[in-house]
Amino acid sequence: MSIEAFGPGCKIAVVGSGAVGCYYGGKLAQHGGNVHFLMRRDLEAVKRNGLQIRSPGGDFHLRHVNAYGSTLEIGPCDLVLIALKTTSNTALEKLVPPLLNENTALLTLQNGFGNEDFLAEHFGAQRVMGGLCFVCLNRTAQGVVEHFGFGTLSIGEFERGPQERTRRIVEDFKATGIATRVVENLATERWRKLVWNVPFNGLSIAAGGITTDLILADDGLRSLCKNLMAEVIDAAGREGHVIRHEFIEEQVERTSKMGAYKPSSLIDYLEGREVEVESIWGEPYRRGLRSGAPVGRLEMLYFLLRKLTAKK
Amino acid sequence: MSIEAFGPGCKIAVVGSGAVGCYYGGKLAQHGGNVHFLMRRDLEAVKRNGLQIRSPGGDFHLRHVNAYGSTLEIGPCDLVLIALKTTSNTALEKLVPPLLNENTALLTLQNGFGNEDFLAEHFGAQRVMGGLCFVCLNRTAQGVVEHFGFGTLSIGEFERGPQERTRRIVEDFKATGIATRVVENLATERWRKLVWNVPFNGLSIAAGGITTDLILADDGLRSLCKNLMAEVIDAAGREGHVIRHEFIEEQVERTSKMGAYKPSSLIDYLEGREVEVESIWGEPYRRGLRSGAPVGRLEMLYFLLRKLTAKK
Repeated sequence: MSIEAFGPGCKIAVVGSGAVGCYYGGKLAQHGGNVHFLMRRDLEAVKRNGLQIRSPGGDFHLRHVNAYGSTLEIGPCDLVLIALKTTSNTALEKLVPPLLNENTALLTLQNGFGNEDFLAEHFGAQRVMGGLCFVCLNRTAQGVVEHFGFGTLSIGEFERGPQERTRRIVEDFKATGIATRVVENLATERWRKLVWNVPFNGLSIAAGGITTDLILADDGLRSLCKNLMAEVIDAAGREGHVIRHEFIEEQVERTSKMGAYKPSSLIDYLEGREVEVESIWGEPYRRGLRSGAPVGRLEMLYFLLRKLTAKK
Repeated sequence: MSIEAFGPGCKIAVVGSGAVGCYYGGKLAQHGGNVHFLMRRDLEAVKRNGLQIRSPGGDFHLRHVNAYGSTLEIGPCDLVLIALKTTSNTALEKLVPPLLNENTALLTLQNGFGNEDFLAEHFGAQRVMGGLCFVCLNRTAQGVVEHFGFGTLSIGEFERGPQERTRRIVEDFKATGIATRVVENLATERWRKLVWNVPFNGLSIAAGGITTDLILADDGLRSLCKNLMAEVIDAAGREGHVIRHEFIEEQVERTSKMGAYKPSSLIDYLEGREVEVESIWGEPYRRGLRSGAPVGRLEMLYFLLRKLTAKK
């Protein structure tokens, strides 16, 4: 299989080559995609040794990787995967322009709210697409990414329904073996993902650095979890994004099967990296406030996390 | 000045001789009160060296202290000051009976809700009184208590208005130089005290072990603080205890003058002692739930603290 649905010779850039960027970009490159990685801390290591992905679905090693230290070296692309930490979004103002031609699509794989809006504001709404990754990844060494499981991708357009390109890009990812689907309403999907991220990523930090199984094993935290989910669902509903209440029990059930899982924000927190507080908690909190949703628990979690994760 | 208003020769026991018990019992003893201390960890040190109180109002040293290892040795008293940690309340079932005669008054100086109820249930409602201490104390060594400031005491009766004995006991404390007043409605006062304790004691732990000045210096935590106070005031109001909303700003103002203050629960937490989670957060949360008050933030704080302070 090869990447050709988004046009033969489709040129792809990956901006933000952490675990997510390397995994999804790496899968495309593995299957013949013309992928160019912007790298910083791993640049020399990847140039020397390539990129290694360890995965239950099969390890693979890309010996020759197109890795660069600047987007000027990469030049204009057809598709840009954006996988930077949301806390570094302002850097995109300078990083993205050299990658643009008239029709370049920008697909953000970042967490939470505000990323599509940011890209639309700076580079034009018609370029912007969003992808939600349900995946458990960790960068374990320079140029080495560990894939623990999951990996599905849901891709949609910013403030409009799916386009021809949406379906093409989804086909490109499918061709690599990643379960990918087109999303009718991207904002609804973002809210749905937050129904999980808000309580589990948040409580894992606020309750003292604990895994999801310990959250669910504690009666109080388990009940908090559900009440936080209900607040997010209510806030989503007031913006017209209907999420059924049964979704709460489904998410709890699903999570209870994940064992001692460390949410990505907990890993960031424990490893001293910035936590994406604004996109995961700040933005939904502010949207809830604006629409008059009761968001007392979300408020509490947001402000506690903002303080707990502040750099000293 | 001497202790005689509650009857000449009034015999007083102090159960729970931590910082609060030693300070208030010590003040009574210093002014001629017939005070008997039940002690555990400090017993030998106090028998040997007496009790030292260091205070901006004047240090004092009680060289000869009536200190005992059991309440059987103390025998029946007229007044029992109860200053045990609320997490040890079940111990009172055995400790109190040897101290009782027909008219023994039990005055709990403990924090939060549930303590008068506990005493009433086990020893009869008519015996029970409650005192609210606004004081900053720390036991710094065996038999040594540091008094940093404040110290006012508000004393009332359990589920009834002030009695003759209430006024007498208040006079006894006043005679020692402690600003003491009779409280018309004890439950209202407990709610008023929680308006402060719930946010400041709670956030000082949940936000990572910080002093009150740092809570107020952070916009988010400051706003959380006020919103938590509003939840407590609302829950109090639904039980008929009216607290004006201006009280919130007054408390914030008062606290901002206290500097880098460590709430008592934070000291307990940092020193690895049990935190009084149920009496300060659990009980008001449950009361709020029962009366239908919106207590989302209080719920969050309660369940987080329960987990954060659980013994490993």
